Amino acid sequence: MQSLISNARSDQDRKARKIVLEILESSLKASNPKDLVKKQVQLKGNFLNFASFTLNLDDYDRIYVIGNGKTSGAMAEAINEILQKRITNGFVNIPRGMSRGLKTGCIKLNEAGHPIPDKAGIKGVRCILELLEDVKESDLIISLISGGGSALLPLPAGNITLTEMQSVTNNLLKCGAKIDEINIVRKHVSDIQGGRLALKVFPAPLISLIISDVVGNHLPSIASGLTVPDPSTYSDAVEILKRYCIWEKSSQSVRLHLNNGLEGKVPESPKLSDQYFKNVYNILLGSNRGVLKTASVKAWQLRLIPMVLSAFIEGEARHVGTVIASIARETVLSDGFLHKPTVVLAGGETTVTVIGHGKGGRNQELALSASLRIDGLEGIVIASIGTDGVDGPTDAAGALVDGSTLKRARERGMNPFDYLNDNDSYNFFMNLNDLIMTGPTGTNIGDLIILVSI
Amino acid sequence: MQSLISNARSDQDRKARKIVLEILESSLKASNPKDLVKKQVQLKGNFLNFASFTLNLDDYDRIYVIGNGKTSGAMAEAINEILQKRITNGFVNIPRGMSRGLKTGCIKLNEAGHPIPDKAGIKGVRCILELLEDVKESDLIISLISGGGSALLPLPAGNITLTEMQSVTNNLLKCGAKIDEINIVRKHVSDIQGGRLALKVFPAPLISLIISDVVGNHLPSIASGLTVPDPSTYSDAVEILKRYCIWEKSSQSVRLHLNNGLEGKVPESPKLSDQYFKNVYNILLGSNRGVLKTASVKAWQLRLIPMVLSAFIEGEARHVGTVIASIARETVLSDGFLHKPTVVLAGGETTVTVIGHGKGGRNQELALSASLRIDGLEGIVIASIGTDGVDGPTDAAGALVDGSTLKRARERGMNPFDYLNDNDSYNFFMNLNDLIMTGPTGTNIGDLIILVSI
Repeated sequence: MQSLISNARSDQDRKARKIVLEILESSLKASNPKDLVKKQVQLKGNFLNFASFTLNLDDYDRIYVIGNGKTSGAMAEAINEILQKRITNGFVNIPRGMSRGLKTGCIKLNEAGHPIPDKAGIKGVRCILELLEDVKESDLIISLISGGGSALLPLPAGNITLTEMQSVTNNLLKCGAKIDEINIVRKHVSDIQGGRLALKVFPAPLISLIISDVVGNHLPSIASGLTVPDPSTYSDAVEILKRYCIWEKSSQSVRLHLNNGLEGKVPESPKLSDQYFKNVYNILLGSNRGVLKTASVKAWQLRLIPMVLSAFIEGEARHVGTVIASIARETVLSDGFLHKPTVVLAGGETTVTVIGHGKGGRNQELALSASLRIDGLEGIVIASIGTDGVDGPTDAAGALVDGSTLKRARERGMNPFDYLNDNDSYNFFMNLNDLIMTGPTGTNIGDLIILVSI
Repeated sequence: MQSLISNARSDQDRKARKIVLEILESSLKASNPKDLVKKQVQLKGNFLNFASFTLNLDDYDRIYVIGNGKTSGAMAEAINEILQKRITNGFVNIPRGMSRGLKTGCIKLNEAGHPIPDKAGIKGVRCILELLEDVKESDLIISLISGGGSALLPLPAGNITLTEMQSVTNNLLKCGAKIDEINIVRKHVSDIQGGRLALKVFPAPLISLIISDVVGNHLPSIASGLTVPDPSTYSDAVEILKRYCIWEKSSQSVRLHLNNGLEGKVPESPKLSDQYFKNVYNILLGSNRGVLKTASVKAWQLRLIPMVLSAFIEGEARHVGTVIASIARETVLSDGFLHKPTVVLAGGETTVTVIGHGKGGRNQELALSASLRIDGLEGIVIASIGTDGVDGPTDAAGALVDGSTLKRARERGMNPFDYLNDNDSYNFFMNLNDLIMTGPTGTNIGDLIILVSI
């Protein structure tokens, strides 16, 4: 990360880059999922306290821990530290390579494919279902759910194969469909998502601890709402596939299952009025809002006044980048509406409609696009990162730009428009040494956009 | 406009709609071009005072007024009221239908085609060139320049015909090229733009009064920088045509002229160091920044705290709409970063990449897209308008949305996605009676986006 400072071409840029990196670092640190659980779930004697209610553990015979998602391994470690030997058994699906160093006691961590679901994921689902097979009203189930959970807990419905399920998701991702839309489809080609996990836990009481990576934290959308009543229907799923012109491309068994759903031949996902949700408690432990709060606090500590635009930022990454750059340009004018020094923060998750053949991620593309509008301006730095440290199919968390970015690109004979048109932001920033590389952070609460103007 | 209030489905929405319309109205009123001129150009005895310097009119034999642009007619009326009989002669090109009611004394107003240049425009150019034919160092030329001036003063270079010139502009508009980019091309297929008018005025001193419709008010871009040194080159023009894949589609004479330019066979547009600019004064009288200032003042008067994001807003209209809606959603949360009541203002000019066959404009499309993200929220209104009252090829200035917009559309069996995908925002809002119809305002200083959350 040292290059991110030394790449600066002026003292002002260097100072702005330092501020951005300090805010980034403290934001990522405070949004560690283990700390999020331990701050909000506490055991006092036999009483397990959550933010808003308390359980007496003496009321339960056995405690099972299940879960799935990018940060669920760290959550399992936290729950294990809290409940220790009180846990009867546990099984959690996490992405490949993410179990290293985690101590989860009797909660087994199973590594599976993400973002593309795989056989290990299916094996994990089976283990979880086995574990739930004989649960009773007197048992307590704690589920640890986080972003990425949709892919990590695959159980295709009907005759749909895993490959067919994957290709539906892939096609939607490529068309720039929103994550909510992708999840509505996922929930209707799955036998576990869209509240169906709650159905399998019934009649045992279920506490679902959730860390959200979904813009707006709509519970039915996080990890495809495993334990949440599903407001969407087969008809919504079909409409989305048609809207993105993917219906015709989808496999026969996908279309058959959805058509069966439309005709009422297979059961609709469970709804709020169903008995399954009588004893289900969904608790949101962490979200993008939290990371923005930490970032604001850090800005104040650095004696800068933060302006947080929104935790709901969505839209095509390159155009969001343009708007952020528009705001940056406003700070430069002596008679402008925004005044230096300032920190502008925004969170959410943008999308990229892939048209080129390059390598990149939404945060890198946002930054590249922003660089086009701040060319030559001094003391302005814009960074965008995925809090999970993995931006698109790359090993970078995001990227950072300033007013000298284009100059440095031109010096290397690079045309930024070519890279943008080819969705090749990764190679653009790789050549400039301006990728933000954090490695997988263990956190996954959306994206963070930081604009510093000094 | 009464329907814009009565369409509200709740008291809160009604109140928010009223606030938006009050801000709109006062902003448009204060940005009247005649007032902008009269506030900043004043005659005291023989002394003509501009914002930053003064001329003694006794120093000049004759005063000529020339100009072109959407608001240049009203500017001519103002200059005529100020200088009256001191004006020797004048000729100003304005859009068709815009001369009605204007009293400009001996300054002749010539109506010509806009946004597509036509023969009347060419006739106008000839009249202006005739008028300038025998100007001397002892004459004073005042030019009145405003947005739309590129199309209104066409003088194709080389063997390029007017139709060929039009089709280059049309193709660029359709591909979503930025106005700066379109102007760079225009300046290199023209014999008058890109500073070439200054060359024709030389050696007489030239005062150029400018009202900007260009984001960021970059003088070489306003009305293709008639009286401003041109930093762009033939090579930039060719690159832009190639970037948008229009080079191959361009006519042979366009390509021939540009290639001649690349090879130095025809003169490059005049640059800053050229003698022609020794006696040229370009003065910016009005811009988008002004309209945002008025809107802020009005918000304060209504006891609301305005947050102005930027006067530099650019990007694809629908995605800018998404970002504005993201900010709106943030205001709704009780623990959000932005608090109700609030007014968020932004200015600039977005673009639309036309893919459908519908009717619409960038402001209407921005509003339609924003409506998708505020569905069901109460007390939120988002409006976007072109200050000239003409949004795209429609008779509407823009449109207004609130949290009931989609509900009302659904009641009429309208699918907003269909309208958005077909770039058919005009018919969407026409059916809902939520178009903002001001008629041509005589002003032209970019777009104004207003978000009110109460």
